Amino acid sequence: MFIVQKFGGSSLANDKLIFNAAQKIIDAHRNNNKVVVVLSAQGNTTDNLIERALKINPQPSKRELDVLLATGEVQSVALMTLAIHKLGFSAISLDCRQAGIFAANNYGNARIEKINPQRIMNEIEKNNIVIVTGFQALNSYDDVVTLGRGGSDTSAVALAAALNADVCEIFTDVDGIYTADPRIIPTAKKIDKINYDEMLELASLGAVVMHSRSIELAKKYNIKLVVRSSLNNSPGTLIGDENVEQTLINGVAVDKNVAVISLIGLSDEPGMVFKLFAVLSKNKICIDLIIQSIGRQNTKDISFTVAREFLDETINILQKNQDFLCYDHLIFDNTVAKLSVVGAGVASNPEIAKMMFEGIYNEGINIKMISTSEIKISILINENEIERAANAVHNNLLDIKN
Amino acid sequence: MFIVQKFGGSSLANDKLIFNAAQKIIDAHRNNNKVVVVLSAQGNTTDNLIERALKINPQPSKRELDVLLATGEVQSVALMTLAIHKLGFSAISLDCRQAGIFAANNYGNARIEKINPQRIMNEIEKNNIVIVTGFQALNSYDDVVTLGRGGSDTSAVALAAALNADVCEIFTDVDGIYTADPRIIPTAKKIDKINYDEMLELASLGAVVMHSRSIELAKKYNIKLVVRSSLNNSPGTLIGDENVEQTLINGVAVDKNVAVISLIGLSDEPGMVFKLFAVLSKNKICIDLIIQSIGRQNTKDISFTVAREFLDETINILQKNQDFLCYDHLIFDNTVAKLSVVGAGVASNPEIAKMMFEGIYNEGINIKMISTSEIKISILINENEIERAANAVHNNLLDIKN
Repeated sequence: MFIVQKFGGSSLANDKLIFNAAQKIIDAHRNNNKVVVVLSAQGNTTDNLIERALKINPQPSKRELDVLLATGEVQSVALMTLAIHKLGFSAISLDCRQAGIFAANNYGNARIEKINPQRIMNEIEKNNIVIVTGFQALNSYDDVVTLGRGGSDTSAVALAAALNADVCEIFTDVDGIYTADPRIIPTAKKIDKINYDEMLELASLGAVVMHSRSIELAKKYNIKLVVRSSLNNSPGTLIGDENVEQTLINGVAVDKNVAVISLIGLSDEPGMVFKLFAVLSKNKICIDLIIQSIGRQNTKDISFTVAREFLDETINILQKNQDFLCYDHLIFDNTVAKLSVVGAGVASNPEIAKMMFEGIYNEGINIKMISTSEIKISILINENEIERAANAVHNNLLDIKN
Repeated sequence: MFIVQKFGGSSLANDKLIFNAAQKIIDAHRNNNKVVVVLSAQGNTTDNLIERALKINPQPSKRELDVLLATGEVQSVALMTLAIHKLGFSAISLDCRQAGIFAANNYGNARIEKINPQRIMNEIEKNNIVIVTGFQALNSYDDVVTLGRGGSDTSAVALAAALNADVCEIFTDVDGIYTADPRIIPTAKKIDKINYDEMLELASLGAVVMHSRSIELAKKYNIKLVVRSSLNNSPGTLIGDENVEQTLINGVAVDKNVAVISLIGLSDEPGMVFKLFAVLSKNKICIDLIIQSIGRQNTKDISFTVAREFLDETINILQKNQDFLCYDHLIFDNTVAKLSVVGAGVASNPEIAKMMFEGIYNEGINIKMISTSEIKISILINENEIERAANAVHNNLLDIKN
């Protein structure tokens, strides 16, 4: 078997955890398997590096921030390789350049575009366990770029695809994917199997935050993904395209990293929305929920959500383009949170929406935005009501499932 | 003017010092100069990283240790670039690969072999201040290797040569090169000018520890080197080949990083010494002082010194080769230190040797080894007597100079 394993920062936070992960890697290698391992930075390393940068320059260049952040994963791979050596096995660390991971140009949130795994294959042939830096790639300017939060998941899946691996194991500090975050919703249950599309919608569900792009890639290349604990041997959650026996609802997801921006008084003519999203896309701003109100007096309003770290930049871009976009004024709110219900049955079973909104209503919580897809219903509410709402919705939905 | 500046770890140990160095860099750039800056890792970063590695694996692979250590300089260059941006100037950080610095293969103590400064020149043409990682290079396996302690000096001088720079400024936390380490010898004086050969012998003199290889390169390519303080504007020490008016003695140097190994009972036949040093050289062990005793009963003894971090490895190699080298037994001592007197007048003025040995004798200190060159006398004594010996010798020599 050819196995790609990925360990997140919480699974590498101290020497004991590093040796624990090293043992998992060696166990995989021992059964005559080829093993390539992708690592994140240890524990809070990335946050600490960001803090150091911001102390020196509160508006850091994205390029230089990437240079700084990428050192976290390089340290991880060197220390892990030393741990594996200590346990008596051959291993070698490779950075993104040596591993041949190439990305598009935008700093801070780059997208893997190509992998040339020649050196990895050479090292595998020498019977080395290969330890690769996650979260980073080389762009066409020959600069290191990072892949955004959770990007190591994507590094692992992309490598699994390029290496034609049999399985990609995502190790973390919980037992798998849950129907909701157990820290918020005590009744949350572990999911044994889930398909790519549901997992995509659930990308930020439970205690496991998976990088959406990693699920997209897994689906595209049909990579068997397993999310499991680095601390025990429980089988975890299998993410695949097998026709898994679907539970009606796969989960309730909470996202607090949400800000909403509304453009008020856009002129109600064709092309305005296109112009708006062209401007945002050009500036690499990722938007999530979008709602367009029905126009009144020949104008309309558009609201959309962005991750909070992009709020200032997005507002700045919108203000610079006010004449071009022809809106009257702009309002925003960064005290909101998003609650989503995800599952293959959402579109086909109106009972689900009913039970969801009933839960919210019973708690007396006001809904600010609603957005739906084939397998998801998302609502935006006040951040300080999100735990209460999530528990109410999750408990109501449990009733449907049983 | 084209200026290469190098800042050591103590000049970058906190944010205040980083901004202080950034201001020095900007001052140089402002006068219409092209500026390339070479940085070490901040403060104790390198030592801390070594400690982390040793905790995981007390016998770390040199390759992986280099991967780990190289992150220190990468963090420095990113943070410095952010500081320069904050002060309103254009700058970009480059790692050793981007800066085109290539070295021979040996890990941990590599030698710069080639520099391809194409990207540096491109960035200079865009009016960027270019901030480059010191201490590291890329080898022919495409791996990062480090240049040994003080290697950033060598990075700076090698870049100055490749870029045909007008001057290479080595910034540090003292005012220049002293006749001895002022922390040990209170009567030490600053040297205004010194030539390459004397500086080579003094490479570990005073509070400034310069990498020998950097002086060799400066001499080879005739680079004007200035060692000066990052904390004030004093002119520092000029190292060059100008026929500087030579003081009789340039200084007293102390080196505590010394271990001595003696091979006892080598057979007294031609070629034995060659075989010994061939074995050591093949294993990249750098030796310093060498003394061969007059043979007795058809055998001879050879003693030589190595840096303490190489002691275990050297003993290991010698033991493995005992049959080949035909020695009887081996003894070693890592509680010794080296005291050297350096100056153009050493060989021509017997008064210097006399005053040196008189100082040692007056202190009642026993000498274990003596080695001399045209411009240097070195002795090996007990480490715990080195401060006393250095002061006695320095004070005695001051009498000659005045």
